[in-house]
Amino acid sequence: MGPSEFDLIERFFSQRTIHRGDVPLGIGDDAAILTVPKGMELVAAVDTLVADVHFPAGAHPSDVGYKALAVNLSDLAAMGAEPAWATLALTMQRGDEEWVKAFGDGFFSLADQYKVQLVGGDTTRGPLSVTVQMLGLLPPEQALCRHGAQVGDLIYVTGTVGDAGLGLLIQQNQLAAPQSIRHHFLERLHRPKPRLKEGQALRGLATAAIDISDGLAADLGHVLHASGVGATLSMHRIPLSEAFTGMASEVDRMASQQDSLWPPHLITALSAGDDYELCFTIPPDRRTVFEALVRGFDCDVTLVGEIDMETGLRGKTSQGDVVAVTTSGYQHF
Amino acid sequence: MGPSEFDLIERFFSQRTIHRGDVPLGIGDDAAILTVPKGMELVAAVDTLVADVHFPAGAHPSDVGYKALAVNLSDLAAMGAEPAWATLALTMQRGDEEWVKAFGDGFFSLADQYKVQLVGGDTTRGPLSVTVQMLGLLPPEQALCRHGAQVGDLIYVTGTVGDAGLGLLIQQNQLAAPQSIRHHFLERLHRPKPRLKEGQALRGLATAAIDISDGLAADLGHVLHASGVGATLSMHRIPLSEAFTGMASEVDRMASQQDSLWPPHLITALSAGDDYELCFTIPPDRRTVFEALVRGFDCDVTLVGEIDMETGLRGKTSQGDVVAVTTSGYQHF
Repeated sequence: MGPSEFDLIERFFSQRTIHRGDVPLGIGDDAAILTVPKGMELVAAVDTLVADVHFPAGAHPSDVGYKALAVNLSDLAAMGAEPAWATLALTMQRGDEEWVKAFGDGFFSLADQYKVQLVGGDTTRGPLSVTVQMLGLLPPEQALCRHGAQVGDLIYVTGTVGDAGLGLLIQQNQLAAPQSIRHHFLERLHRPKPRLKEGQALRGLATAAIDISDGLAADLGHVLHASGVGATLSMHRIPLSEAFTGMASEVDRMASQQDSLWPPHLITALSAGDDYELCFTIPPDRRTVFEALVRGFDCDVTLVGEIDMETGLRGKTSQGDVVAVTTSGYQHF
Repeated sequence: MGPSEFDLIERFFSQRTIHRGDVPLGIGDDAAILTVPKGMELVAAVDTLVADVHFPAGAHPSDVGYKALAVNLSDLAAMGAEPAWATLALTMQRGDEEWVKAFGDGFFSLADQYKVQLVGGDTTRGPLSVTVQMLGLLPPEQALCRHGAQVGDLIYVTGTVGDAGLGLLIQQNQLAAPQSIRHHFLERLHRPKPRLKEGQALRGLATAAIDISDGLAADLGHVLHASGVGATLSMHRIPLSEAFTGMASEVDRMASQQDSLWPPHLITALSAGDDYELCFTIPPDRRTVFEALVRGFDCDVTLVGEIDMETGLRGKTSQGDVVAVTTSGYQHF
């Protein structure tokens, strides 16, 4: 693992990670050695969190550790994969042991829960950022990809959307929320729950899936683009939390302009990122089987729309009027 | 791959990478899907290069792309593994297309040479840094680990050491070199050659191996520590390039003090990092087989010392006097 394996990761984390039977060699050599079970395919995802871009530099390190792993687990959930091993590239200005220990608290709370072993890493000096690579397993040809959505498929979303987005506005002091619900939004922002169980249950049922990191509209847009189709969302069915609904009029007041039929809080819910819920498509003939399955999920699942032939994303009112939906997902540059 | 798969990596790199038959799903979904051949183990390494720490922010992006992959390939070489797939996490202040394209020139020149497919990545906004995760393959129980060195084993080094270290001094204008050899040192610094062929050939022969990223003394020290042994280096046998030897007196003059028997240029050669040569140990009874094998290597291999029971690192003069060697490897914090 390059020049730094004798640095912070080895010193603080090699004893804290769980040890899986399929890791002949973990942290502490030039590379880790891992055993992929016969008949399983390997799934690899990578995501970086940069200080003052993806989290405030002063954020609690435990939240940063949790989220750096969570966003990667969410990628695996969106593939229907089972997580197994992670590597961690940690860049920080100085070797702040307290920060690293607290980072580990958050990281390992989630890693232990999903039986993920940290198998290697690199600690470097520089502006604070965290890159996690997540490796997981999947039976052949069962991956939930983006390109499989078919005309007529039903579009579902787990949990609720928009909460993390309001959490970000609250954190940036752009929105004031009553103390009683402030925590809810910040928790959604800092501690997203990767929908691993749900993703794995969707294998063989969903034709396409994605996790919502850039906002429902943008991420569903990726599915539509990859599948060469379009979609119509039933806008009154977009799942909003009670807390979000309680803030709706405040969000509407904040909006400088209203450029469509849709109230600003609904556009916020569709365009806010960081929820890490799953959006996926189910063919109508699997609906009954799917809706029975959903009862075992840890979260609600909501039917929000349908795939159609005409490309682009449209919204339908409860009265049946159809109007284009334009939002902008999180822009990286 | 999180929020940015529709960003620079997908736009610029998905068409530039080679396509391997063992990649059912590459760049462009939430994660990549990879097929590990039956009977092979998976090897994973990760390394980060940070601007103004590991390379000057103004470095040629092609050199940065080359080196970001090279240092990871070198980790696989040190395990005896065969490289297969890479992911790339690229953080940059703005989406500079020219920079990204030139970065790709360097990255893919090396990736193509070793049949490495770029299977995913993440592009984020922030201070310039590059994290590559390298995945490779290895037959079971054939890994070259750090902990296997035995008392009596012979210590070998590929190529020459110290050149990249002088390259860094030249780049930082701390050392002036004649134009004729300046290029040699900078090339060693910017374009290290991963010793993959050599590492793979050492399977079943070497008892331990490491790549030299922190300097021969520090990296051999990692092997000694992991193996619970010590070593004595024949200091007059440390392999130095002709160019390095030509600069020796200049390096000796630069040294502010001389605190041991050993001339400063020799201590520089032992403590300078970034050479990415391999250091490994061979039991004496395999010496004949090994030295026959070496004739097929792309580089020279030099016997530099021997593993002994007494912990620590010692140097032996050509007259047979033994004196402790103290150097400091590259310190990350």
